Amino acid sequence: MTQAPSEKAYVPFVSVADMMKLVHHIGLQDMLLELTDAIEADFGRWESFEKIPRVASHSRDGVIELMPVSDGEVYACKYVNGHPKNMSSGLQTVTAFGLLAKVDTGYPVLLTEMTLLTALRTAATSAMAARHLAPANSTTMAMIGNGAQAEFQALAMQTVLGIEEVRLYDIDPLAMKKTMNNLAGFGLRTVACTSAQSAIEGAEIITTCTADKQFATILSDNMVGAGVHINAIGGDCPGKTELAPDILLRAETFVEYTPQTRIEGEIQQMAPDHPVTELWQVVKGHKTGRSSPQQITLFDSVGFAIEDFSALCYAGEKIKGTDFYQQIDIIADPDEPRDLFGMLQRARS
Amino acid sequence: MTQAPSEKAYVPFVSVADMMKLVHHIGLQDMLLELTDAIEADFGRWESFEKIPRVASHSRDGVIELMPVSDGEVYACKYVNGHPKNMSSGLQTVTAFGLLAKVDTGYPVLLTEMTLLTALRTAATSAMAARHLAPANSTTMAMIGNGAQAEFQALAMQTVLGIEEVRLYDIDPLAMKKTMNNLAGFGLRTVACTSAQSAIEGAEIITTCTADKQFATILSDNMVGAGVHINAIGGDCPGKTELAPDILLRAETFVEYTPQTRIEGEIQQMAPDHPVTELWQVVKGHKTGRSSPQQITLFDSVGFAIEDFSALCYAGEKIKGTDFYQQIDIIADPDEPRDLFGMLQRARS
Repeated sequence: MTQAPSEKAYVPFVSVADMMKLVHHIGLQDMLLELTDAIEADFGRWESFEKIPRVASHSRDGVIELMPVSDGEVYACKYVNGHPKNMSSGLQTVTAFGLLAKVDTGYPVLLTEMTLLTALRTAATSAMAARHLAPANSTTMAMIGNGAQAEFQALAMQTVLGIEEVRLYDIDPLAMKKTMNNLAGFGLRTVACTSAQSAIEGAEIITTCTADKQFATILSDNMVGAGVHINAIGGDCPGKTELAPDILLRAETFVEYTPQTRIEGEIQQMAPDHPVTELWQVVKGHKTGRSSPQQITLFDSVGFAIEDFSALCYAGEKIKGTDFYQQIDIIADPDEPRDLFGMLQRARS
Repeated sequence: MTQAPSEKAYVPFVSVADMMKLVHHIGLQDMLLELTDAIEADFGRWESFEKIPRVASHSRDGVIELMPVSDGEVYACKYVNGHPKNMSSGLQTVTAFGLLAKVDTGYPVLLTEMTLLTALRTAATSAMAARHLAPANSTTMAMIGNGAQAEFQALAMQTVLGIEEVRLYDIDPLAMKKTMNNLAGFGLRTVACTSAQSAIEGAEIITTCTADKQFATILSDNMVGAGVHINAIGGDCPGKTELAPDILLRAETFVEYTPQTRIEGEIQQMAPDHPVTELWQVVKGHKTGRSSPQQITLFDSVGFAIEDFSALCYAGEKIKGTDFYQQIDIIADPDEPRDLFGMLQRARS
């Protein structure tokens, strides 16, 4: 007779539908704020993590990446792809899922969709960086590239920094229209612009989030005036950049994890010793963030595993006591641990 | 109104219960044979894979590993842990799960338990190696270490090589008894032995599969006579070995993927240039396997990602047309791919 799997066999799984329920249960803006704080807290204990650059498998059409990290108690790993051409066949550019496991047993304790969770944690990371780098009392953000990330970025900057106006630009007017429509009702002033140049007028924060996998210049040097904070999140793999190199010569550059950003970030255009500051050092007060109103700050963001760690731990805590997950039978659990074969044989019906 | 996820959102998931059903549906021995052939076929196209050593995160109690590999069409990745102490708290030493994804879109196409599948593919890999390395017409195998792998190894060697007798030894008599009981009814002669020395008497194939994470000597030099094939599968991470180094000086050593085995295998005890042959070269006929009846051959097996690739592809094919899987909603699939935010907002009930 086949026995039902034991409790040890089960791992909570959060589907896309459940993640959406969780977001609305918490409240989208509350969740963005809490994620910002969670990521900041983990950046504040940066040295307690075992870190490696993500493990990338590149192909003609895109990249598949694994992003593992551990703090010695909890192990997190995200699977994520980046395929700019997917959109033209009705697929997502970026999809992701992730897991948490206990380091002491190696047993997974959470499996979850991370397409949505990545969008949320990416926006929260931008907001966390802007807390330390954006001009004081910033009220206006330019959002260049109006893809799947755009609304999350706008709402995180509104919620965490108090941004009041978002100036949108995308080469595709439909993308801009989609973003305008989606942002209606959140109390943000949204302005559709006809060029990147026009979008950045009056903006203290310039966020670039485009998806082309090629050395592209979304911002040229003469577009960027003194005192702005640039939040560059689209350039995130080898060969993919958004900023003219001259901007980097004028800006103070902040990164997540230098070994990964040297390969993937805007600074791949620069000398291997181009000076950068790791953001965690600013969070911990070891280094200065913005040092003057005139300074140009650049967050050369590529996305790092610790952000996913924070988001996974957050989601794992938040689903407790809810029914926003299902238990999936993913761990073989024989009564006697060495008797995997016996379990298999007893399952024969 | 919440819409049901679209078809693109779903990925087939094979639970432990479903994997057991699949094994019995195919037939355990048929599956071992088919997996052996599948792995051999993929070793035969070794050069078409993008390969890296597995990505390991070591802790005091064990290791968590990611094993990615791609052939340019299909990407596979296994999550696997190794925690020898787990057994004492009623947990598995090794648990695993894996995924397949399409390289051209990055979309996952299969998610499955791999604790059972790893046991099967590990046994099939041993059998595949023994096909090329064991003495002709071998009839007897010593099985030292009677943990979760033991029965799978025995049955694969019976099915693929025609082994008739398995001589068992484990420091724990209960493990030996478990293995004896489980192997009853398969037409194998099983002999419980009182020492490793006694177990290897008359055996043409010596399989070692113990789990202690420390430099251990399961086989000492004087125990190993001419003409045997050693299938060493327990030593599979840094600091974990099973064979006295002198044995390696007398044996011809065959490995899966040299960069990984240098770190993890028996050869970590030897000089960095200790000569080894990669098994795929034997499979392809580029190198000789066993060259004489007197030769000692050693398959210094640590487990490589291509074996998981083969097993995952095999399982993915075999579940087609069955109900041995469930569809899980793990990919966010907005109607318009850039409209992730809109999908989230429309899900608000």
